[in-house]
Amino acid sequence: MNYRMVWQIVGRVLCTEAVLLLIPLITALCFGESVVPFLITIALCAVAGVLLLLLKPNNSKIFAREGFISVALSWVVISLFGAVPFVICGDIPNYIDAFFETVSGFTTTGASIATNLEAFSRGCLIWRSFTHWIGGMGFLVFIMTMMPMAGTRSMHIMRAEVPGPTVGKLVPNAKKTARILYSIYIGMTVLEAILLLCGGMDVFDALIHAFGTAGTGGFSNRALSIGYYDSAYIDGVITVFMFLFGVNFNLYYLILLGRFTAALKSEELRWYACIALFAILTITFNIMPLYDGSFLRGLRYASFQVGSIISTTGYATADFNLWPEYSRWILILLTFTGACAGSTGGGMKISRVMLLCKAARQEIRKQHRPHSVSLVMLEGKAMPDSAVHTTLVFFVCYLGMLLLGTLFVSLDGFDFVTNFTATLTCISNVGPGLAVVGPRGGFSEFSGICKLFFSFCMLFGRLEVFPMLMLFSPAVWRKQ
Amino acid sequence: MNYRMVWQIVGRVLCTEAVLLLIPLITALCFGESVVPFLITIALCAVAGVLLLLLKPNNSKIFAREGFISVALSWVVISLFGAVPFVICGDIPNYIDAFFETVSGFTTTGASIATNLEAFSRGCLIWRSFTHWIGGMGFLVFIMTMMPMAGTRSMHIMRAEVPGPTVGKLVPNAKKTARILYSIYIGMTVLEAILLLCGGMDVFDALIHAFGTAGTGGFSNRALSIGYYDSAYIDGVITVFMFLFGVNFNLYYLILLGRFTAALKSEELRWYACIALFAILTITFNIMPLYDGSFLRGLRYASFQVGSIISTTGYATADFNLWPEYSRWILILLTFTGACAGSTGGGMKISRVMLLCKAARQEIRKQHRPHSVSLVMLEGKAMPDSAVHTTLVFFVCYLGMLLLGTLFVSLDGFDFVTNFTATLTCISNVGPGLAVVGPRGGFSEFSGICKLFFSFCMLFGRLEVFPMLMLFSPAVWRKQ
Repeated sequence: MNYRMVWQIVGRVLCTEAVLLLIPLITALCFGESVVPFLITIALCAVAGVLLLLLKPNNSKIFAREGFISVALSWVVISLFGAVPFVICGDIPNYIDAFFETVSGFTTTGASIATNLEAFSRGCLIWRSFTHWIGGMGFLVFIMTMMPMAGTRSMHIMRAEVPGPTVGKLVPNAKKTARILYSIYIGMTVLEAILLLCGGMDVFDALIHAFGTAGTGGFSNRALSIGYYDSAYIDGVITVFMFLFGVNFNLYYLILLGRFTAALKSEELRWYACIALFAILTITFNIMPLYDGSFLRGLRYASFQVGSIISTTGYATADFNLWPEYSRWILILLTFTGACAGSTGGGMKISRVMLLCKAARQEIRKQHRPHSVSLVMLEGKAMPDSAVHTTLVFFVCYLGMLLLGTLFVSLDGFDFVTNFTATLTCISNVGPGLAVVGPRGGFSEFSGICKLFFSFCMLFGRLEVFPMLMLFSPAVWRKQ
Repeated sequence: MNYRMVWQIVGRVLCTEAVLLLIPLITALCFGESVVPFLITIALCAVAGVLLLLLKPNNSKIFAREGFISVALSWVVISLFGAVPFVICGDIPNYIDAFFETVSGFTTTGASIATNLEAFSRGCLIWRSFTHWIGGMGFLVFIMTMMPMAGTRSMHIMRAEVPGPTVGKLVPNAKKTARILYSIYIGMTVLEAILLLCGGMDVFDALIHAFGTAGTGGFSNRALSIGYYDSAYIDGVITVFMFLFGVNFNLYYLILLGRFTAALKSEELRWYACIALFAILTITFNIMPLYDGSFLRGLRYASFQVGSIISTTGYATADFNLWPEYSRWILILLTFTGACAGSTGGGMKISRVMLLCKAARQEIRKQHRPHSVSLVMLEGKAMPDSAVHTTLVFFVCYLGMLLLGTLFVSLDGFDFVTNFTATLTCISNVGPGLAVVGPRGGFSEFSGICKLFFSFCMLFGRLEVFPMLMLFSPAVWRKQ
């Protein structure tokens, strides 16, 4: 393992975090709040970052191992430092709580321990939501847009951080790919913020919710989430953007190039649309009786909640905890699937679900016709066996973590539904679950050790299983 | 597809069922009950069976396809006919209920819709429990012990009916293998019945519970299950035998041959023992406060319930529905794993869980050292990639059925825990779940369509996923 190169990358990440912390600092200045929490954190990040950068590497070569480990470590470290402002300014006095909240931010989960949200300082609120935005597209991908990582084979890093079973470069150069992705991302975020301003939100709220939607995170500055505004227009705008941020960004690049039909032909997009449509329609009919039998009101709440869960954002305009069991379970299933690969969304990703279905069909075929040869096709291309195998193992690890995680969490004494959905929603980076952790509830009542475990789950899900498992695998750390 | 050969096999199965129905008929005679229900069913089975046998096949060749389909069809057909006596004698007047109960019997699930169990006729009770015994080791395997299936490549049938990721023949001849397995099975059943008689059970109860334990089924003739006897001796005997019937029968054959060390070296046996031990000990400490802080009482109830769930029997001496959340979730996890391959137990099987863990470890290794070569080893042998792949897909289908099944069942309006555990317990052939379907509850309140769906789930689990999926796959039925 090229340790020094790993420290080098973590050092860069910390220095970048120091720069990004200027955003909440400026916000605090604007609103006349104390800037001390952010100044201290910036100093800490900068000192630690520079110290790590001083450990000059002998060679800049990195391989898959270094890619996974530096990404996993970077995410842990930015959360450790990112939690500091919350503690210093007193909004979240407990450091473990603050760490949980920061991990939830960066991983775009949106699960919260906050019980007094509306009393938070503006600086902390904007930092909390900004972590969503930067975590959505990827912290290291962001750095790549700025600094060239010459000779470091940056694809190893992109592969570890960008969601999906396979990573496609839009253009041959990784830095250019990262820049295109971030340009689309910024453009869409600005557009959403403007549309929210038109709906009567003030600038601060519009930014908070545009960040939360873009990263598919779900932090709000309102205890009632989007339900606070009770506006069909705002519901509509956010619903549309939640769905849009759940789409593979490569498709937007295709659209920018004018290749509309190629974009619309995407198999994953079609599955995404069909799943969402099925969920919205059946839930609408299922919940209509709760909304005076009105189809339109049912449709409004169903589409918002489905968009929120399938894109793994986690905003809410209705307490779906009180919905009929069918609707609740559909939302749980959407928590599993998540959004498209290459989007800012979490979950298993639609393309993985597709691969699993196709692998099952292929296996049934193989079982009854042992001598037949059949390939698993995705987006018109034959998938290599190794990619199918990795996806199958991914599913096993995902479910294994959910089942064993629920056991661990059950020691806190909460009920079955809380334990199961809390673990699932953290792994899938959605945010709300059911029962105690429903859209009107939160994670504040869990013990410290469980909160640390949930933080692990969120990172496990955001980095797609393998990087976090490697971080805790002794074999990986051994010098070859 | 060699249709005529499939009908031939189903015909044999029906004729055999007609013969097996003599057992409840004789029981009814002994207790002075009406024999009409059984006479009618015997006549129906015999007529249908003989009619099918008259369709002489042109050639007796069968392949994997015919093996899977004839096993799947046979199991549906024996349940359809086996349900008739319950309806005629009036113990279960509704045919769908009776079908559910019969499928639950043959698949050794033990889930019941009976609400007036103690009023059942003796003939029906013994038939109900006898279905466990015959289903445990396999209906077609039973036929193989009697009739040679010359030239029909009977391994295709054994493979479809005997549980586990791989099927090993004890001796080169499939018929002899089947005979050895059944001899061990009968020996152990008789031994358990004698030990239960020594504990003060009458002959009828001893037979019922020996059948129920041997098949790892779980039907009792008492509403309180084994809790009715409230005897530490009976608890102990049944606990030991539940664990024993969850062990791979090949190991007993090794022991009969005097190869003790070879049997004890089994990797799967060690995992089974470790998992059971871990579950028993942690549950004991978890539930002690419920039993006046007594370690021994805690241990007694913990071992019985763990043995009952891990072997997928489903007997109960305590209402574990009321246990703390940790213990409840451990039992849910055991419902997933199930017992050893090649036993009469259900679930995913310990050896599959082992394969999944090892495949995950191998994949992590491959991810960080892409050029390393590593094999998945089971019982000291390298597993072929195709077997690992099949196991991974098995897991996907198992979980897919659980997640989508829970959605279907949720339309009945029961709560989250009921829907989830009811579907799981049916797929894993355990019997009890939690909440409404807990050890003191049952499936009687579900709608007819859900009961039919649960019946499908039980067959899906018992025949290990692929045969039942093929039964509903049009491609399989197409003439080549």
